[in-house]
Amino acid sequence: MGEESQAEFMRRAIRLSSDNVRRAGGPFGAVIVKGGQVVGEGCNRVTATHDPTAHAEIVAIRDACRRLSTFDLSGAEIYTSCEPCPMCLAAIYWARLERIHFANTKEDAAAVDFDDHFIYEEIGRDPADRAIPRNQLLRDEAIKAFEDWTAHAGRIRY
Amino acid sequence: MGEESQAEFMRRAIRLSSDNVRRAGGPFGAVIVKGGQVVGEGCNRVTATHDPTAHAEIVAIRDACRRLSTFDLSGAEIYTSCEPCPMCLAAIYWARLERIHFANTKEDAAAVDFDDHFIYEEIGRDPADRAIPRNQLLRDEAIKAFEDWTAHAGRIRY
Repeated sequence: MGEESQAEFMRRAIRLSSDNVRRAGGPFGAVIVKGGQVVGEGCNRVTATHDPTAHAEIVAIRDACRRLSTFDLSGAEIYTSCEPCPMCLAAIYWARLERIHFANTKEDAAAVDFDDHFIYEEIGRDPADRAIPRNQLLRDEAIKAFEDWTAHAGRIRY
Repeated sequence: MGEESQAEFMRRAIRLSSDNVRRAGGPFGAVIVKGGQVVGEGCNRVTATHDPTAHAEIVAIRDACRRLSTFDLSGAEIYTSCEPCPMCLAAIYWARLERIHFANTKEDAAAVDFDDHFIYEEIGRDPADRAIPRNQLLRDEAIKAFEDWTAHAGRIRY
């Protein structure tokens, strides 16, 4: 894929981000590309849909998976108008995307009050030192579902 | 909240995980609780809905936000049948949940082939050293949407 089409795909992601601002939505857009074609796209819908997980990258991944009827985007790449937050970065791994193209940086995002630096730090910490407290209970009951899963002949691995 | 009701909420999350295995879905369930009431719940729907982001915690957060018409779950807690992966952990921060109750551990999950250890490691790495390559382009064009956002009087901050 040449430089020109990479710029085209990124401009589409940027346009999604700008259009969203006009609707008072967060300034983020993303496009999923496979085989030189756009197979999914999205913009930030957190406030519009009351969904804190509706970051542009997540919306675009869900859109591509719906269109392609798969949960596996191997061979596809993401163009996002801003460097992904930890949630979106992890989602990119789960979706098996193969390259991340981005424009604005985390530092640019922090400068307009979208600061995911805190979450990157938290994830890297020992669980006991994180800001959100944890409490383990009933592992002896929960483990049964894992055993049932292992024994389930029809399970679909992912 | 006493020990007994914590156990009740966790048993509900565990039941969601077990019921899902019977449908050949991943062995994960989650419940969101606010003010002593269940306000959202979910199980892993990755394969059932072709959505790699549909982990139990994400599904439960989206369900609670839809029911409560908010993207902010401050004051709520999550009960999840298994320790969250990095995507779900970051989503828990974005949703502003205040406590994480879990049963099975990451190590239990890895033992039945759900291994998110790799993703935890990747997120902690310097971006240049990660397995998924990155490519920055067109920041000069993308930054315009951030400027527009800052200038937008009607923007809803989150």
